[in-house]
Amino acid sequence: MLRVIPLGGVTEIGKNMTIVEQDDDILIVDCGLMFPENDMLGVDIVINDFRYLIERADKVRGVILTHGHEDHIGALPYLLRDLNVPIWGTRLTLGLVDAKLSEWGLDEQATKHVIEAGETVTIGPFTIDTMHVGHSIPDGIGLGIHTKEGIIVHTGDFKFDPTPVDGRMTDFAGFERLGNQGVLLLITDTTNVERPGYVPSERIVGQTFYDVFQRAERRVIIATFASNIHRIQQAIQVSADFGRKVAILGRSMAANTDIASQLGYLDVPADTRIAVPEIDFLAGHQVTILTTGSQGEPMSALSLMASEEHKKVQIQPGDTVIISATPIPGNEDLVNRTINHLFRLGADVVYHPLAPVHVSGHAYQDEQKMMYNLVRPRYVLPFHGERRHVAQYARLVESLGHPADRVLKMEPGDILELSDGSATIAGHIDGGPIMVDGLGIGDVSHIVLRDRQLLAQDGILVAVITVERDTGKVIAGPEIVSRGFVYMQESEPLIEEAKLRIRADLESLQESEGVPDWGTVKADVRSSLSRFFYAVTGRQPMIIPIVMEA
Amino acid sequence: MLRVIPLGGVTEIGKNMTIVEQDDDILIVDCGLMFPENDMLGVDIVINDFRYLIERADKVRGVILTHGHEDHIGALPYLLRDLNVPIWGTRLTLGLVDAKLSEWGLDEQATKHVIEAGETVTIGPFTIDTMHVGHSIPDGIGLGIHTKEGIIVHTGDFKFDPTPVDGRMTDFAGFERLGNQGVLLLITDTTNVERPGYVPSERIVGQTFYDVFQRAERRVIIATFASNIHRIQQAIQVSADFGRKVAILGRSMAANTDIASQLGYLDVPADTRIAVPEIDFLAGHQVTILTTGSQGEPMSALSLMASEEHKKVQIQPGDTVIISATPIPGNEDLVNRTINHLFRLGADVVYHPLAPVHVSGHAYQDEQKMMYNLVRPRYVLPFHGERRHVAQYARLVESLGHPADRVLKMEPGDILELSDGSATIAGHIDGGPIMVDGLGIGDVSHIVLRDRQLLAQDGILVAVITVERDTGKVIAGPEIVSRGFVYMQESEPLIEEAKLRIRADLESLQESEGVPDWGTVKADVRSSLSRFFYAVTGRQPMIIPIVMEA
Repeated sequence: MLRVIPLGGVTEIGKNMTIVEQDDDILIVDCGLMFPENDMLGVDIVINDFRYLIERADKVRGVILTHGHEDHIGALPYLLRDLNVPIWGTRLTLGLVDAKLSEWGLDEQATKHVIEAGETVTIGPFTIDTMHVGHSIPDGIGLGIHTKEGIIVHTGDFKFDPTPVDGRMTDFAGFERLGNQGVLLLITDTTNVERPGYVPSERIVGQTFYDVFQRAERRVIIATFASNIHRIQQAIQVSADFGRKVAILGRSMAANTDIASQLGYLDVPADTRIAVPEIDFLAGHQVTILTTGSQGEPMSALSLMASEEHKKVQIQPGDTVIISATPIPGNEDLVNRTINHLFRLGADVVYHPLAPVHVSGHAYQDEQKMMYNLVRPRYVLPFHGERRHVAQYARLVESLGHPADRVLKMEPGDILELSDGSATIAGHIDGGPIMVDGLGIGDVSHIVLRDRQLLAQDGILVAVITVERDTGKVIAGPEIVSRGFVYMQESEPLIEEAKLRIRADLESLQESEGVPDWGTVKADVRSSLSRFFYAVTGRQPMIIPIVMEA
Repeated sequence: MLRVIPLGGVTEIGKNMTIVEQDDDILIVDCGLMFPENDMLGVDIVINDFRYLIERADKVRGVILTHGHEDHIGALPYLLRDLNVPIWGTRLTLGLVDAKLSEWGLDEQATKHVIEAGETVTIGPFTIDTMHVGHSIPDGIGLGIHTKEGIIVHTGDFKFDPTPVDGRMTDFAGFERLGNQGVLLLITDTTNVERPGYVPSERIVGQTFYDVFQRAERRVIIATFASNIHRIQQAIQVSADFGRKVAILGRSMAANTDIASQLGYLDVPADTRIAVPEIDFLAGHQVTILTTGSQGEPMSALSLMASEEHKKVQIQPGDTVIISATPIPGNEDLVNRTINHLFRLGADVVYHPLAPVHVSGHAYQDEQKMMYNLVRPRYVLPFHGERRHVAQYARLVESLGHPADRVLKMEPGDILELSDGSATIAGHIDGGPIMVDGLGIGDVSHIVLRDRQLLAQDGILVAVITVERDTGKVIAGPEIVSRGFVYMQESEPLIEEAKLRIRADLESLQESEGVPDWGTVKADVRSSLSRFFYAVTGRQPMIIPIVMEA
């Protein structure tokens, strides 16, 4: 029996984790986290439900990681807490994993195996060929997993950069060799299947940096992803070429550059890096600042600079700011706001698409076609994309002659069973997603989320009375407290009127009944206040009546 | 004295309203509303502060409208309630205004003057030439306002479509004639100044419709903006050509097509339109559905269809859905979700940029240059754009030889004074923005908004005790109610522990002091609960202690 179970988020499929199960052995590919959807208010991150794995703990042989991005390694601490499985990955990937696990105090217990791309590793019954792939973080790999039913190729996140910054080309030969052996299933990154052609080389970003530096008369501030080591390398190299010193701002940027330098993935020329306070002792044309905040994240270094709240760096007229990224969907507004603020402060802002300051890490259509034609699989499972990407990928490979019924359109958690060269979807596991808020994992239910959405719309109003237990007589209150509904200090008449209505409700009830049923009282107060506030304000705050018995 | 005061929102400048003031006469150009920024939780719309106008009511001669979009006419009811000024506009614009004012019961009192594009109107001391301009709604105009200091050209929202659907070209000659007379100030639409070239003609969308209809075997569902009458005209015409009947879904789509048909801006061939229930009596290839929801708005007809909640129309496998729009910034997520759901239901979805199903209503760079060169103004005031657009527009006209110091970089509310051919920024008025939430105008303060943001993050927890007034003895409670923090029914141990802590706090206070100071008690309870919940849950709900005295 061979099963493949791609997990994922609400819309994305197989992005964060794929389970390969052969008889009594399970191999896990990647263990990433997801970011919350816009309506998941207050939720920090989203992970998968690992119950399927935990219930089969004795079968799990290990996790193999394709690269070091958060959406591929970020959920490891949540898995390892419950299931201490060995981890395989390349050197940089494991370096980033180490940093993460040590924050959680899990680094000592973890067993790690370093992979050199190109080598073949054995995990349980699986022989796995590894192939270097280009991506927006170094040291990514694709996998050729040999199973008893045939070969499964998992591309990882990939693109084919013809002139990579580190000179390491994608291992075309490795993929082709597997193709020649006959591939049962290609699990492939389809993020950019809507874009024609090829991803431009990362090197064009370096060229843009060069052009910008040539005309910059004062400081250059470059915001990019902390994990894009090649981008950071280019920024440092161009700075050194122009005799600029480089300061690094932002916790993740500092941590990642340290790890990458120590492991030899980042080459910082001697005397180039300076500490942040040294910026002030140098002239503008001698300084480059590398920073986080390319997504406009409100607490990031660049956003704080843009809103004049950064403690150490103030934007000065004439500074040049390069936003070396494109907004991740959902972040457009934040990035836009940052750009506007920077212009307002007199900076010259260089951003996509007005200048080629960013290239994607994911293959475009022609690269997808090339990968397909190297591997020539019997089945394809498009991953890392949403429904729209799956639909477009199906079109793409059908145009190459792939049979339509061998494109697998799966939901996250669907179980794919492969046997004798045929594939069927045979059931479903509950793989999440699970919301993490603070220390709580999965305890933010849809009820809590719905309440947060209501609270965000029109706020809340709490009305309290204290009554004598035996008589039902009101001995204190009504007291009213509200937040996010109206500004209490300016709304006294409204609140007083509401109190009068509560008293009137109580009186009419008490006349008729003696000690009232407090459940009914609360329901009455809620609906009468709700009507009153809607009529007067047009708003519908959440109304919570509380009856205290003394 | 001649003053120009562009109003606007938080980032946009002069988009919704511009005030032109000459001695004792005020002319208002446009009176639009804005949509709330993402962090303005619960806010419905945003308008300008009209106090400057209301305080000068006797000077205001009228409002002239450039076109009928909400961001140019939507705030009229809020202005007219307080200041019943006459309105000038083209026929379609006034038709849309009528519908809006009648909803507010303001249509009877309003004085309206119809403009035929090309004619010259007189409003107070101002002689105003009007020029037809292309845009994504028919019947838009630009203005040449003759003042004693010189001519002010206001482009309105514009583009130069070489082959407009209604055959009405932008009035190049009108703009050039003003340019020949000498223009003091050009107030111009810079929304798309970041895009090179020209906006493609609206007709290419009709061609795409034709191509899609040719291969569609079942129903075609087209979602677009309800005000894009040319787009709707093309959808109807292509449907008629293919023998399809057209049903219209969505309140605003139905209302706008009715107005446009009655006024002769939309030509619906006889027997083409059907009522929504008739859809079910026709075969798929006989039906087109025109609908709202191109922005993924959660309650729109298309979103309801995508989430299988629409009462009258269910998506069927093989339906073709055309999203004939691009997401307005901030709506990307919602549109994306809609597309994914439609694919999941088996529809074929056609969307931008994979197919040319949308063109913008705003001029690209070469059109901007053309407008500038027709008008050749002494000063330019870029509007309808944000800071980034203003910066890029400055670059654009400087490349045409315009002096850098004659590009006016103004904030919303800045007062521009023009005299003897020179322009200076001389002060500032408080022009808003004002947030409208329900019936409340401007009463949602930043305190209320901040509370909504906090509530949305981690919810709220209310802790109540009732004490005897004279002794300070607790006679009821503590009672705890929470929403949006943890799911109460599953968190009893947590809540019980919190109650114990409150009791402990109270006891330690009472031992030392007799009747405590309740303000101090509340502060103590708040901070001790806050620490406790953060330690246990990692969350920081808003904590409201209430002490009732009996």
